[in-house]
Amino acid sequence: VIHTLAILVAAGRGERMGSARPKAFLALAGEPLLLRAARAFAASGTDAVVAVVPSAEVDASRRLLAPLDARCQVVAGGERRQDSVREGLRQAPAGFDGVVLVHDAARPLVEPALIDAVAAAAREHGAAIPVLALCDTIKRVEHGRVVETLDRASLFAAQTPQGFRYGLLMAAYERAYADGVTVTDEAMAVERLGASVAVVAGSPRNRKLTTPDDMTWAEAQLADSARVSA
Amino acid sequence: VIHTLAILVAAGRGERMGSARPKAFLALAGEPLLLRAARAFAASGTDAVVAVVPSAEVDASRRLLAPLDARCQVVAGGERRQDSVREGLRQAPAGFDGVVLVHDAARPLVEPALIDAVAAAAREHGAAIPVLALCDTIKRVEHGRVVETLDRASLFAAQTPQGFRYGLLMAAYERAYADGVTVTDEAMAVERLGASVAVVAGSPRNRKLTTPDDMTWAEAQLADSARVSA
Repeated sequence: VIHTLAILVAAGRGERMGSARPKAFLALAGEPLLLRAARAFAASGTDAVVAVVPSAEVDASRRLLAPLDARCQVVAGGERRQDSVREGLRQAPAGFDGVVLVHDAARPLVEPALIDAVAAAAREHGAAIPVLALCDTIKRVEHGRVVETLDRASLFAAQTPQGFRYGLLMAAYERAYADGVTVTDEAMAVERLGASVAVVAGSPRNRKLTTPDDMTWAEAQLADSARVSA
Repeated sequence: VIHTLAILVAAGRGERMGSARPKAFLALAGEPLLLRAARAFAASGTDAVVAVVPSAEVDASRRLLAPLDARCQVVAGGERRQDSVREGLRQAPAGFDGVVLVHDAARPLVEPALIDAVAAAAREHGAAIPVLALCDTIKRVEHGRVVETLDRASLFAAQTPQGFRYGLLMAAYERAYADGVTVTDEAMAVERLGASVAVVAGSPRNRKLTTPDDMTWAEAQLADSARVSA
């Protein structure tokens, strides 16, 4: 029986990375981001993983993830992020009423303990996301001018995995599609329903890799870990 | 004649760094952050630098910065960030009507070209700050629950140096002190006057070093630069 299902979103082109290959397939210290992220979920309490990838990468992804586990499937994604997530949600077994975790493959250093903390909070509260306090002062800018300094004490950066009771996320997605709305993350779809989204402490290591500079950072992190565990 | 005066703020304790020594005095690849930041300003079009440091670090800072230039002075800072900046502003020469740049010593990898871009924009517009687009989705959180997803298209992270015509920043500080307000950055004091603050493109390399993890990142950056220039 599947209690926790993870959807790994790896369908983005990752244009800011300056590479022809989609971001999730770039090698980080020799291994693609998607494989590293999938391995973190395999090491957590997650029961099954659905990787959503560009259609041209489906076969390569199946080969890449084959060594991991039979409970890891691969499907082709859609146009927007939310279209890809919806493809993943369709792979849930009939009658599924567990927790679904949606994660960016571009966050390959996520810790299994964080994954499990989000799953537990989602089970308890219905919806939960990891967040990090902001270090920088945040400005609202319009037409090249600062129009507002936000009160950063209450502002946090959302990470993934974002966890939800399956029925709640499905209802939120149905509503977003019915309303023709594009959401920037899954929690936003749930917030639109007026449902409560809990937060858990995110992790600096769980950074989203967006630029070549971020890849340099991640390689330094991995080298550091290797040194500590050696 | 001094046209551009920089104030390097190095008075913070940097508690998140987990070190007894104030953050600006920690070594990054063998050299304190303060020295690295001061060197970036020495390599820019800046005419004079005032480093504002904890009173216990004044003598050590003078020795540290002595090799740089006679135009670099050191003064003791105050309680809050803005108290330290005010100490720096008091060092401006009589009749100064140039541009003042306020910079965090905890951003030691700032590029001289960025410093000069901010100075030029401040000279033209009166006030200018470097900003970076946000990669993460930003949530407003209250009592452990998400209450809002912000529209990140108009949100930017403020960096330093922040540049101002001297008279404008002095007026903004006077007003902030008269009103008993604590500001999170200098631009916020100027925004409170209703004055316009322009933005220039910030730099990923100009990140504020806050945690040991950030130090690891910065060391990887320096190693990369060394490889490129070797």
